[in-house]
Amino acid sequence: MGDTINVGLIGYKFMGKAHSFAYKNVSMFFDTPLKPRMKLLCGRDEKGVKAAAEKFGWEGYVTSWKDLVSRDDIDMVDITAPSDAHKDIAIAAAEAGKHVFCEKPLALTLSDAREILKAVEKSGVKHMIGFNYRRAPAVQLIKKLIDEGKLGRIFHFRGFYLQDWIIDPEFPLVWRLQKEVAGSGSLGDLGAHLIDMARYLVGEFDEVMGMNETFVKERPMVSEMTGLSGKAAEGAPKAPVNVDDATLFLFKFKNGALGIIEATRFATGHKNGMWFEINGSKGSVRFEFERMNELQYYSVDDPEGVQGFRTIQVSEPVHAYMQAWWPAGHVIGYENTFVHEIYEFIKAISEDKLPEPNFYDGVKCQEVLTAVDTSIEQRQWIKVDEV
Amino acid sequence: MGDTINVGLIGYKFMGKAHSFAYKNVSMFFDTPLKPRMKLLCGRDEKGVKAAAEKFGWEGYVTSWKDLVSRDDIDMVDITAPSDAHKDIAIAAAEAGKHVFCEKPLALTLSDAREILKAVEKSGVKHMIGFNYRRAPAVQLIKKLIDEGKLGRIFHFRGFYLQDWIIDPEFPLVWRLQKEVAGSGSLGDLGAHLIDMARYLVGEFDEVMGMNETFVKERPMVSEMTGLSGKAAEGAPKAPVNVDDATLFLFKFKNGALGIIEATRFATGHKNGMWFEINGSKGSVRFEFERMNELQYYSVDDPEGVQGFRTIQVSEPVHAYMQAWWPAGHVIGYENTFVHEIYEFIKAISEDKLPEPNFYDGVKCQEVLTAVDTSIEQRQWIKVDEV
Amino acid sequence: MGDTINVGLIGYKFMGKAHSFAYKNVSMFFDTPLKPRMKLLCGRDEKGVKAAAEKFGWEGYVTSWKDLVSRDDIDMVDITAPSDAHKDIAIAAAEAGKHVFCEKPLALTLSDAREILKAVEKSGVKHMIGFNYRRAPAVQLIKKLIDEGKLGRIFHFRGFYLQDWIIDPEFPLVWRLQKEVAGSGSLGDLGAHLIDMARYLVGEFDEVMGMNETFVKERPMVSEMTGLSGKAAEGAPKAPVNVDDATLFLFKFKNGALGIIEATRFATGHKNGMWFEINGSKGSVRFEFERMNELQYYSVDDPEGVQGFRTIQVSEPVHAYMQAWWPAGHVIGYENTFVHEIYEFIKAISEDKLPEPNFYDGVKCQEVLTAVDTSIEQRQWIKVDEV
Amino acid sequence: MGDTINVGLIGYKFMGKAHSFAYKNVSMFFDTPLKPRMKLLCGRDEKGVKAAAEKFGWEGYVTSWKDLVSRDDIDMVDITAPSDAHKDIAIAAAEAGKHVFCEKPLALTLSDAREILKAVEKSGVKHMIGFNYRRAPAVQLIKKLIDEGKLGRIFHFRGFYLQDWIIDPEFPLVWRLQKEVAGSGSLGDLGAHLIDMARYLVGEFDEVMGMNETFVKERPMVSEMTGLSGKAAEGAPKAPVNVDDATLFLFKFKNGALGIIEATRFATGHKNGMWFEINGSKGSVRFEFERMNELQYYSVDDPEGVQGFRTIQVSEPVHAYMQAWWPAGHVIGYENTFVHEIYEFIKAISEDKLPEPNFYDGVKCQEVLTAVDTSIEQRQWIKVDEV
Repeated sequence: MGDTINVGLIGYKFMGKAHSFAYKNVSMFFDTPLKPRMKLLCGRDEKGVKAAAEKFGWEGYVTSWKDLVSRDDIDMVDITAPSDAHKDIAIAAAEAGKHVFCEKPLALTLSDAREILKAVEKSGVKHMIGFNYRRAPAVQLIKKLIDEGKLGRIFHFRGFYLQDWIIDPEFPLVWRLQKEVAGSGSLGDLGAHLIDMARYLVGEFDEVMGMNETFVKERPMVSEMTGLSGKAAEGAPKAPVNVDDATLFLFKFKNGALGIIEATRFATGHKNGMWFEINGSKGSVRFEFERMNELQYYSVDDPEGVQGFRTIQVSEPVHAYMQAWWPAGHVIGYENTFVHEIYEFIKAISEDKLPEPNFYDGVKCQEVLTAVDTSIEQRQWIKVDEV
Repeated sequence: MGDTINVGLIGYKFMGKAHSFAYKNVSMFFDTPLKPRMKLLCGRDEKGVKAAAEKFGWEGYVTSWKDLVSRDDIDMVDITAPSDAHKDIAIAAAEAGKHVFCEKPLALTLSDAREILKAVEKSGVKHMIGFNYRRAPAVQLIKKLIDEGKLGRIFHFRGFYLQDWIIDPEFPLVWRLQKEVAGSGSLGDLGAHLIDMARYLVGEFDEVMGMNETFVKERPMVSEMTGLSGKAAEGAPKAPVNVDDATLFLFKFKNGALGIIEATRFATGHKNGMWFEINGSKGSVRFEFERMNELQYYSVDDPEGVQGFRTIQVSEPVHAYMQAWWPAGHVIGYENTFVHEIYEFIKAISEDKLPEPNFYDGVKCQEVLTAVDTSIEQRQWIKVDEV
Repeated sequence: MGDTINVGLIGYKFMGKAHSFAYKNVSMFFDTPLKPRMKLLCGRDEKGVKAAAEKFGWEGYVTSWKDLVSRDDIDMVDITAPSDAHKDIAIAAAEAGKHVFCEKPLALTLSDAREILKAVEKSGVKHMIGFNYRRAPAVQLIKKLIDEGKLGRIFHFRGFYLQDWIIDPEFPLVWRLQKEVAGSGSLGDLGAHLIDMARYLVGEFDEVMGMNETFVKERPMVSEMTGLSGKAAEGAPKAPVNVDDATLFLFKFKNGALGIIEATRFATGHKNGMWFEINGSKGSVRFEFERMNELQYYSVDDPEGVQGFRTIQVSEPVHAYMQAWWPAGHVIGYENTFVHEIYEFIKAISEDKLPEPNFYDGVKCQEVLTAVDTSIEQRQWIKVDEV
Repeated sequence: MGDTINVGLIGYKFMGKAHSFAYKNVSMFFDTPLKPRMKLLCGRDEKGVKAAAEKFGWEGYVTSWKDLVSRDDIDMVDITAPSDAHKDIAIAAAEAGKHVFCEKPLALTLSDAREILKAVEKSGVKHMIGFNYRRAPAVQLIKKLIDEGKLGRIFHFRGFYLQDWIIDPEFPLVWRLQKEVAGSGSLGDLGAHLIDMARYLVGEFDEVMGMNETFVKERPMVSEMTGLSGKAAEGAPKAPVNVDDATLFLFKFKNGALGIIEATRFATGHKNGMWFEINGSKGSVRFEFERMNELQYYSVDDPEGVQGFRTIQVSEPVHAYMQAWWPAGHVIGYENTFVHEIYEFIKAISEDKLPEPNFYDGVKCQEVLTAVDTSIEQRQWIKVDEV
């Protein structure tokens, strides 16, 4: 590969744009051992993919992912297509010897996810999954505090992922609301991020017990999609919604800590409200994505009488990734987490290491998702290791 | 009774002091049709109760609640003794024709609670239970918004009650940690407040599913108690803790809304962190007791582009109870909720009405507590109406 | 006096009610060496004062302050009458050998204030002035941090006192808007609190430079007053407003720190928004009255990477006054600051010490107010020591 | 120019990097009528500028700005060099017929600023000045609210710009602390942003009155600079600091509103704490850069009893610029304000319009800076129109 790495990206909507941004900017801010070359963009609609390729800065485009995966001049394949396409592409890319980045969720089902993992392990390529929130500097700081024992023994994890974009019953049936394409509703889309966060920061799940609801049972069929949203034609027929609008579950970690996760698209007033708190014997932390540059941290090591949750502006050179950006207090945004993620992937490839989170983490997350679904169906606690 | 009402109070520790404050001040701030006369304080330790009676302003004291309940010159009995004493006192007071105020939880068991309710209903006295948080002006404002339809159809209730006072394994086995006296740990003490809040604001519970944990399995036996806390003698023997340190449960309301409640005494950094949020189709509200003068409110009726959670300083004359206190912006505290509560009780007595929340609410809360405990034991969903 | 102290209170409106509350409750929560006896309330309107005396719990009432001051059975006189009455009452009380508590501002003019101070010093009675915000536990914590050197060398004090109750041009000309009665507008009423806070926490003022504005030049004459507010009769004639709606000033402390104070009644959305921040070489603190139970504190002594403003819930037993109230996290309100204040006064009297803040502090505050007014008139910097 | 515009950028440190980012990304997110081509980067140190050009994506580099300005294939010149270089470059660029973007402050002195303005007006090129905070979506929303009359008559503007990076007396004498190079200290660097904000949102300044301080009088001479910071060699000699560490000033707007601005680098705990609030007769707004995606807004048009400052997540498609980025709730960062700024400049050029803020705004800001300095020197109020 020399000192560049040729990238092929599949998908050019919300996630495809975010990934394009990352490839475009990563080497400007970080010392990447390999410089990504934005070689090929793939999308099914030729007009759309052509315009996107030009706008985002890709050298070329194709309309079939098979053409992309089979190209000799592609070193890594990045998959941001809808979830139902992940499996075939990822396995084909692995078999073609390409490094693979895949957006979450890894697959529609746990068995598919395990097949994908098997494929990349067999071929020996590097693989990474898009749990980008791990790469917020504030989350890195939490990880550091926990690893250093600053929170002590952990008792509680509580997390919500709250959005409100589909409360209107006239909001159309976009792909994220179709089980065949998305695999899952609020749980797989939003809950998956919190499951990964809990695993990353606290540990593996032991057992889970969930409930869910679809508040709006049917919606107008969609005719045109834009971003997360879409439009239904005037008088469009309605079709049943077969994914969950909201899912909540209780769980225990293997280390004895208790957890609760709630994922919903029916929390009026919350746009992208990912929030979680961890309580340990020596301290607590709290993070809210909409204030992603801040971390709330309470330490029992502070002197008596002046203990309190402190708001840390996680933007100093000492904080993960922040040396690369701006002086302290000059906040960064959502898209920067993708830059960090791609930086980690490229670094791992160049160092011949497996980055984190990778497809193993994708499978572990899927196990929890599956266990939650099973617990809801069977109305009982489910051991995650037994799914 | 003329224009005064003679009060007998049982208990003079944390709750007894708060109630004494309420009787002492209620007529200074509110136009009470009856003026409470602080007649008699009751406590088992003569030295302690005598000192408290003098300090709090009670005219006399007794050391046996039977002496208090049987006195002709007592019109109402207020019970703030430990939970295991509630039943006998409440029933005796009802039988003696006294109005009864009882701190939560109403009793140690659901059947006891039902017996108490039967007794007051039989005797026809007025009764009230101490869910004082209902009487925070901000909570009254939530109730008003919901009753007026400002939140629309309700989808979610999520509540935590977070404290951290017993994390130290050397913290002694005070009565609140003994099942025989307290009936329950975090669930009955903290969770009960949230259950009442959910019932008050959203509606009755359909089914529940919980989990709990006792993180510290045994503790030194206590030799002296003060406030919530206590001291163990040097080298005191340890005894098992038989109540829950933390309880979490999922639930469904009869109206279809989803709920989650978490009560824990192991949330480092939280002192009295009662927090809840309600999401409806037209708006959301959020309340945090440690900022009890504030309400967070989001309304979809606000103009597009300027919607957001607003922080309402609930201290204007237009807000419940606030006309009685100070000019807008001059915040009130925890103890004032007891003044409001006692005001409501006295007003109801004088108007020959049943106040709210009353023992019926105590029983309904106990049903949920029992259902949660059962769901934990049986590891399955429990219908609240079937306990 | 034995173990009680007989109190005579002049005024029964907003401040009179707050002081009555304090006398009524102080011995319930604090071990007061002397127990205040609520002997006599004074007000000009007999019907009003009689009703207030009964409601607040005073044993008797008079309609002339001279009758109160001259009574043998009064040990201390508490003045909450409008500001123009302070001087005569305070001097008469001192001459009659009564201890004197006076609400701020001490007098209408600096020379009056100095006369009052001379009178109490001559007679040797104890005296205190009502800068009650000093007695918020969070402010006591700031004082402690500064005294212990935790903020290091102080560079900045910035304070606002923001209200919005007179923005409506139809709001009537209540006494607080009449120079003859109130002495001053926003500056004397609101700014005075911040001046005292700055002196208490940072040090004496060196020089000041101000500006002010009266946004609404004339208002309807008032016919009836209630609390801070009042009513104008339909079609009431208008009269000019001769006090400031807003005053801002820059200042230097004698120790070299810089300061800014803004006091305004034209800050829409702020009810009682007293806010200040102090920056020192080792740390910063921030306080906001509407969240009076919290203190924001930043310390450079915290480890690198986890520094931040921490929100301290100033409600733990270790915090000033809080042992007397409730368990940690159970917040207190505005009126409790008066309880603390009266506690300090009674304690000082019983120990034969001069409490703080006393009339000397009242005079020093008045010097700054006068200097600010002079700087506005003369449009130049004014040395506070030279007024 | 066809459909591209060739850019030459002078400076590659903090601001140069931010501008490079903007050119690199603007056409990916916005429909720019002209696409910027990153033609030429200029810096005095060849090794440094060469590395930066490569890293940031510039096609070439030069070490003399004269070479850049005189190049035929450059359409616009962007000046991010230290302030003392602005004048010569800007005038030369204007004379060469290039459009000019200049970082703030426009020049070291008011007369220089006026000369620059004259030059661009004479040559007829487009010009813009780097008050990038105007381009935060939340600030655009404030502007919109004010223009629509939502705040009513404005009474108050209060703004701080708080930083803490030079409190350590051993922090070296970087160029920002040298009057010859920077022109000014905290006032010109930080205060200038607030002056522009006040002018943009409220109106022109009438008169000002300031004070300032240099808390640390001398500092070690710098040997190496990085970002805002730098290093002094071991035992480096000290030299006097001749700029202000902190400047505060009072002012009146021509429309009668009152203002206060404080700029300091000695506010411990604040990294990039630009904060301001505006109070009007119908509403108030509050903005804090470290939470740049949020706006606090209070409206008296809200129903009685539910008025409060609402936290608007300014990230919905309806908000300025946000349609171009991510779905609602996905926050953006500091660097995105530069993308918006450059987008506005390019759009104005293509439409043959003068963008805002331009050099006229630079001159107006400089007038205020000069008036403040004069008021400090002369210790009296200074009319801005008379400097």
